[in-house]
Amino acid sequence: MALHAAGRQSLVDTVVEQLRAQLTSGEWAVGDRLPTEHALAETLQVGRNTVREAVRVLVHSGMLRSRQGEGTFVVSVTDPASALRAVQRSSIRDVLELRTALEAEAARLAALRREPADLERMRSSLDAQLLLRQENGPGAGDTELYADHDVAFHRAIVDAARNTALTALYDWFAASVREALVASLADREMARVNHADHRALLDAIACGDPAAAEAASRALLERPLRQVEELLADD
Amino acid sequence: MALHAAGRQSLVDTVVEQLRAQLTSGEWAVGDRLPTEHALAETLQVGRNTVREAVRVLVHSGMLRSRQGEGTFVVSVTDPASALRAVQRSSIRDVLELRTALEAEAARLAALRREPADLERMRSSLDAQLLLRQENGPGAGDTELYADHDVAFHRAIVDAARNTALTALYDWFAASVREALVASLADREMARVNHADHRALLDAIACGDPAAAEAASRALLERPLRQVEELLADD
Repeated sequence: MALHAAGRQSLVDTVVEQLRAQLTSGEWAVGDRLPTEHALAETLQVGRNTVREAVRVLVHSGMLRSRQGEGTFVVSVTDPASALRAVQRSSIRDVLELRTALEAEAARLAALRREPADLERMRSSLDAQLLLRQENGPGAGDTELYADHDVAFHRAIVDAARNTALTALYDWFAASVREALVASLADREMARVNHADHRALLDAIACGDPAAAEAASRALLERPLRQVEELLADD
Repeated sequence: MALHAAGRQSLVDTVVEQLRAQLTSGEWAVGDRLPTEHALAETLQVGRNTVREAVRVLVHSGMLRSRQGEGTFVVSVTDPASALRAVQRSSIRDVLELRTALEAEAARLAALRREPADLERMRSSLDAQLLLRQENGPGAGDTELYADHDVAFHRAIVDAARNTALTALYDWFAASVREALVASLADREMARVNHADHRALLDAIACGDPAAAEAASRALLERPLRQVEELLADD
């Protein structure tokens, strides 16, 4: 029974891979309806239950959508999970550059769209960071909390941009970014978050100057980027 | 049998939702090992097969990873599919702004890292577009092919940035962007892709000027953005 289940499990994985390959190769396009469960089972020479489980996996993955009584339709021909897995596996330099892309644009838009409550959130995150530093010095014990405040500051900027696409992507990204930030704060080689840089960014957003906000956002991420490039050059 | 399968199907979906909720609520953190299949089945009061199928879904979704003999571990506490689904459901304005974020950064980096072959790819895509336009005029029949060349041009810029994180995200994004582009080219209200704007972007990248490349990339997307904003203002 256990062996049987394990056997079926890997068969489902195989069918998932087959269907995914048909989707990414462009055999079916966005909006297309998939063949029936019955037809797919015949073509792939597997049972209908296996097809049903594989389709379920691809529905949850965001490539297919099932509509009651109408069938299963293609929503995306690239796998969101593979795309974001590739981001997670990228080098620190590449991830920092992607972070710059998202945050510099968010800073521009925040300068145009921020409301008083947004500025209040940014200010209190920076104040909390400053307080932590004064209380504890550059110790390692408060690293997680320090990182929380930093994420809250950047998250407030992204929210102030009033863009649901940017927010959704950043939310996913922040979960990965945070890990890297905690790691880099704990690493003596990397500099501490620069408080003056963060204040300058807040000021530019408060003044409603998109170009200055973008420049301040880039300046803030340039230091860790340069450090990474120096480390790479040493190899 | 069919009813039983349908019943189990929705039970798996329920367990997927329960586990996903535990992940997104922070009950388990990135790197944590999940309780055993047996323990999860007891806690959730479902069969082990149901737990196994739900875990499979979350592995393919990019939230969990199973290591042979070691157990199942948390890779992400946000669901990549939900994040990217939210991007797909965002307004045209929001999607165009996210596209600007990715492409403006890619243009900057491409200006620093492009090689002769990259410039050749960009040039031939633009030449092919120009040729199509001269042959067919602003007809609708060649819209798909025209869009293919446009995607190839922008894809060449992203590749020239030599950043695997940016490329992975853009590849997923391009699949959605392309749909929107074909739709907007077919729509008489929206202006045709501006050839001079594209040449200016290519020139800035060829000259190795990151600031000019970023500005040219923004200028190129500003026209459709402004049109969307005017349409929104009319409502």
